[in-house]
Amino acid sequence: MVAADKDVLSILSTVSANHKVESLASTLSQLKRWMGSDLAEVEAGLTKIEHRDTPVHDSARHLLGQKGKRLRPLCVALAARVGSGFDAAARELAIAVELVHSATLLHDDVIDLGDKRRGIDTARVIYGNAGSIYAGDWLLVDALRRIARVGIPGLLDKSLSVLHEILEAEALQLANRGNVRGTVSDYFRIVEGKTASLFRWALFAGASAGGVCPEHCLLLESYGRNLGVAFQVVDDVLDLAGNPEVVGKSLFTDLHEGKMTYPLLLAIERAPRLGEELAAACAKDALCLSPQLERHLTAVLWETGVVEQCLSLARVRSAEAIAALGSLPTSKARAALEQVALALVHREK
Amino acid sequence: MVAADKDVLSILSTVSANHKVESLASTLSQLKRWMGSDLAEVEAGLTKIEHRDTPVHDSARHLLGQKGKRLRPLCVALAARVGSGFDAAARELAIAVELVHSATLLHDDVIDLGDKRRGIDTARVIYGNAGSIYAGDWLLVDALRRIARVGIPGLLDKSLSVLHEILEAEALQLANRGNVRGTVSDYFRIVEGKTASLFRWALFAGASAGGVCPEHCLLLESYGRNLGVAFQVVDDVLDLAGNPEVVGKSLFTDLHEGKMTYPLLLAIERAPRLGEELAAACAKDALCLSPQLERHLTAVLWETGVVEQCLSLARVRSAEAIAALGSLPTSKARAALEQVALALVHREK
Repeated sequence: MVAADKDVLSILSTVSANHKVESLASTLSQLKRWMGSDLAEVEAGLTKIEHRDTPVHDSARHLLGQKGKRLRPLCVALAARVGSGFDAAARELAIAVELVHSATLLHDDVIDLGDKRRGIDTARVIYGNAGSIYAGDWLLVDALRRIARVGIPGLLDKSLSVLHEILEAEALQLANRGNVRGTVSDYFRIVEGKTASLFRWALFAGASAGGVCPEHCLLLESYGRNLGVAFQVVDDVLDLAGNPEVVGKSLFTDLHEGKMTYPLLLAIERAPRLGEELAAACAKDALCLSPQLERHLTAVLWETGVVEQCLSLARVRSAEAIAALGSLPTSKARAALEQVALALVHREK
Repeated sequence: MVAADKDVLSILSTVSANHKVESLASTLSQLKRWMGSDLAEVEAGLTKIEHRDTPVHDSARHLLGQKGKRLRPLCVALAARVGSGFDAAARELAIAVELVHSATLLHDDVIDLGDKRRGIDTARVIYGNAGSIYAGDWLLVDALRRIARVGIPGLLDKSLSVLHEILEAEALQLANRGNVRGTVSDYFRIVEGKTASLFRWALFAGASAGGVCPEHCLLLESYGRNLGVAFQVVDDVLDLAGNPEVVGKSLFTDLHEGKMTYPLLLAIERAPRLGEELAAACAKDALCLSPQLERHLTAVLWETGVVEQCLSLARVRSAEAIAALGSLPTSKARAALEQVALALVHREK
């Protein structure tokens, strides 16, 4: 079996026999119709962010203007709707979580020398590294000021703990850079810290703004954590085995940045010779994958069941996310969260 | 008159006829004797910061281990001693202010491609840019978590406002990079934001921990603000007209980084031809000052009274800092703050 015969999307389409699974794009567009102005208000807030004519403000505006998926604000809004609904406080928190996410992207692009994001030039290419570094700092502080102004007791402390988790995870990822002997347990520690923690926070923050009881807040946090892991694992699979035209960026970027992801670690475990070839490639100053090595890696990913195992794990985490919602009263918001969890493992970009 | 005849130190030594002015090093060492364990506790806290074997933690530890002047923690400790004294809360805030300062240095070194700090290799040279960027983020978050734990009402909000001011100032400085037509008013906005705001915070935080009344807290903030401006102006003079062997770094680094400081702007105003030469040099990709241009700049700085005017302004701001303390009851801590303000404009590094 080769990549051309069986793509990620077709595997994902078998994700659940019990649910009607929509694509992520279709799910998001249905949700947008239902949620009316919620996400439009978030979008307006993001574009109206304070602006002056400096490379720092320009860098922030450039990234925010690219209209990503806004998954984290969506999580805040849905969690708020599990409670009393999406109000001004929830909107500020939804904006804040996207600002934190954007701050990490700005710093990541400088660190990874990223030239393209969402198919267009990164801020650092247009406005320079300095602009992106300070813009990341600035958005982070702006997000924390919004959270402080909302004034939910304990939420700012929780935000700082999440940022601490994110940075500990980035530190561990950096320490493991290019290490083909990295462990799967380190990978999951990194994913929990750098991705799942912010999804967890988004659910908790939205639920708190919506006045959801502490017990249900915990369940929503558990949903967020599982969703975040599922999301990241699919992301890492798409980077190695997605369709580059659909994903909107070239493949193997994680590997070029020395990031040892779950599918890569499994592939190395199953094909030790591949590990040796990758170790030799990583040892060079500028990692350059030969076409042969790319083909070898792709063959191992598909032929030894790595792609299937990763997507299977993502499906399990998505199911766990949905199961965590089991004790919540049924509602349109809960159903929407279930749909999001399914669509996230059923996406091609 | 040439530089060799009249150095910054000799001008500074005339700073006050009414006070016995000690050098900064001597003032700091006297204060350390008086303050007993205060600063030793801060130092111990800085070296005991959480550590794991990653480039991020290594970068942070490398910078913190270099033992800077610790002026900002000193300000926290003295302000606390104006009140009930230096306790565990004040110690945490003193550590926090040095962590914020260190975070800005780590990011600045990446932005300015700084290779040396305090005479030794910067963290980014040893552990890479990525380590320094995340280490800056990490120290900032660590500082905010300490401030949150201390739990003084409103202090975390004030800290976030100060960080916002710092980043707005960095943005403005970046926008003015290499602009020889920059204005003195922009220069002072930058100094207020990037330097004075953190000194102001240090005084306020220490005073709050020491239970100083709000009225006296305001006076101490005013002291901190003036002290910060005086400190920065002297710093900028030393970068152009200091003794490189004493300062511990080569001269003209601000100019190489395109930073238009007060002495430089005054020199350009007084010698338009110098401005044209500098504009031509700044227009190149890598600024390279010819020995002739360096000599021309140095001559203008000394012969047109630029150095004297800058130091005079620093003396005025130092005097304003001292005057702000006028309504405080006399105490050993107040006298020490006065001594620090004098010594800061009387330093050669």
